[in-house]
Amino acid sequence: MGLPDNLEQVLNSRCFNGEQQRYLHTSTVLDCDMHFSIYLPPAIAIGPVPVIYWLSGLTCTDENFVQKAGAQRYAAHHGVALVAPDTSPRGKHVPDDPDEGWDFGKGAGFYVNATQPPWDHHYNMYDYITQELPQLINESFAVDPGRAAIMGHSMGGHGALTMALRNTGQYASVSAFAPICAPSRCPWGQKALGRYLGDNQRDWETYDATALVYRAEDPPPMLIDQGNADEFLDEQLNPQLFASACEDSDFPLLLNMREGYD
Amino acid sequence: MGLPDNLEQVLNSRCFNGEQQRYLHTSTVLDCDMHFSIYLPPAIAIGPVPVIYWLSGLTCTDENFVQKAGAQRYAAHHGVALVAPDTSPRGKHVPDDPDEGWDFGKGAGFYVNATQPPWDHHYNMYDYITQELPQLINESFAVDPGRAAIMGHSMGGHGALTMALRNTGQYASVSAFAPICAPSRCPWGQKALGRYLGDNQRDWETYDATALVYRAEDPPPMLIDQGNADEFLDEQLNPQLFASACEDSDFPLLLNMREGYD
Repeated sequence: MGLPDNLEQVLNSRCFNGEQQRYLHTSTVLDCDMHFSIYLPPAIAIGPVPVIYWLSGLTCTDENFVQKAGAQRYAAHHGVALVAPDTSPRGKHVPDDPDEGWDFGKGAGFYVNATQPPWDHHYNMYDYITQELPQLINESFAVDPGRAAIMGHSMGGHGALTMALRNTGQYASVSAFAPICAPSRCPWGQKALGRYLGDNQRDWETYDATALVYRAEDPPPMLIDQGNADEFLDEQLNPQLFASACEDSDFPLLLNMREGYD
Repeated sequence: MGLPDNLEQVLNSRCFNGEQQRYLHTSTVLDCDMHFSIYLPPAIAIGPVPVIYWLSGLTCTDENFVQKAGAQRYAAHHGVALVAPDTSPRGKHVPDDPDEGWDFGKGAGFYVNATQPPWDHHYNMYDYITQELPQLINESFAVDPGRAAIMGHSMGGHGALTMALRNTGQYASVSAFAPICAPSRCPWGQKALGRYLGDNQRDWETYDATALVYRAEDPPPMLIDQGNADEFLDEQLNPQLFASACEDSDFPLLLNMREGYD
């Protein structure tokens, strides 16, 4: 399978008999150059493999998961490709607000399509992750679009849950580690959604996993894994709100609370 | 087991049903405060466990291995403690030479006892790793000093090999990933040994694994794992020199060359 002209390989390392690769491409919906990382398992030599999209948390790039999580061994064993996108648009021409801290702007795109200037032109991570990137992946690598799943951590868990709830049929499952479950009701989410989407909280609902449960139809199996010693649990994450909403709707959620883990 | 007054716990995270901890202590031989990380497997609740010392490479601290290697799962399964020390003395009063680059000074102690000023007062990583740190570990945690092993990567592989060859009986085995095998004959080693130990190359031999093979008696089983696509293989690492020396001496070396890995 030949690579599109728009895709430049910048790293390729052998890893558990597969290949850990990194690419640079020009994103149309973000109007900037973006990196993503992809792990290709040995089984891809035989035929198309399932693919998991991993969404990282605040301050991360596409490289944190690749370097720290150790997921490649499992992906090699099970014959699954892993795609790790970046967490925001990048580049000197992309607006940022360093005075706002690490929880807004670059490294903190929150997986939304921003509507408020100056963010609305570049900060379209929702469309990038659900549409542009999978199209590029599907045409460039031997992955099976019919067997895609989505996962994420913290801000990325929020992204994974909202994308799975809004795109029935696109993801076979969704798994979230310590996700922000109700961004409309926590400081991280209120700050980011207020600035990207404006002050009308009704406009936040399409990016609030707990609110989306009440609109969703037939979501895929959902897993939340959460340590009960997580310092952000009480103020920022709110898995119990999401779990209550799923119970109200009789939706398939497995919530694992892990004793003593942060 | 109570902690010595000299040991301050700065992190503790549950990890594979054991605990990943980080400590700060005052080192006498380095004359500075030092961090180390230790993973305690669940089996430590039953009784003393074997312990593996991991020595990291250039530019690393005690945290790289902890965050990136994913070794805790194996350590939990096999019931082994993992100790990850820092790679050099630290602190504002410790001399450094930032103009010399990342391969000398802080983050690049090379696991030697320096003899040349200004390095000779603080840069005594050999004594720290082989004597002071294991004494502290043995008196502070339920590890079995009779079942200790040593491992390392690159500069840390050099440290592990030299320490195992010079301290027969202290380590049950030594394993080195992409180690600097003959520092007297590569640019990284020549620069560091020349500055820490002076220009007389005879003084370097006690820190050159290949030279040490010819002085060692009854070394433990040795493993070297090396990717043949490693960019530093030809100029810096020289595993073939070490392997030849071991063959001459009929020593127990397993050299795994990994096709295509960097």
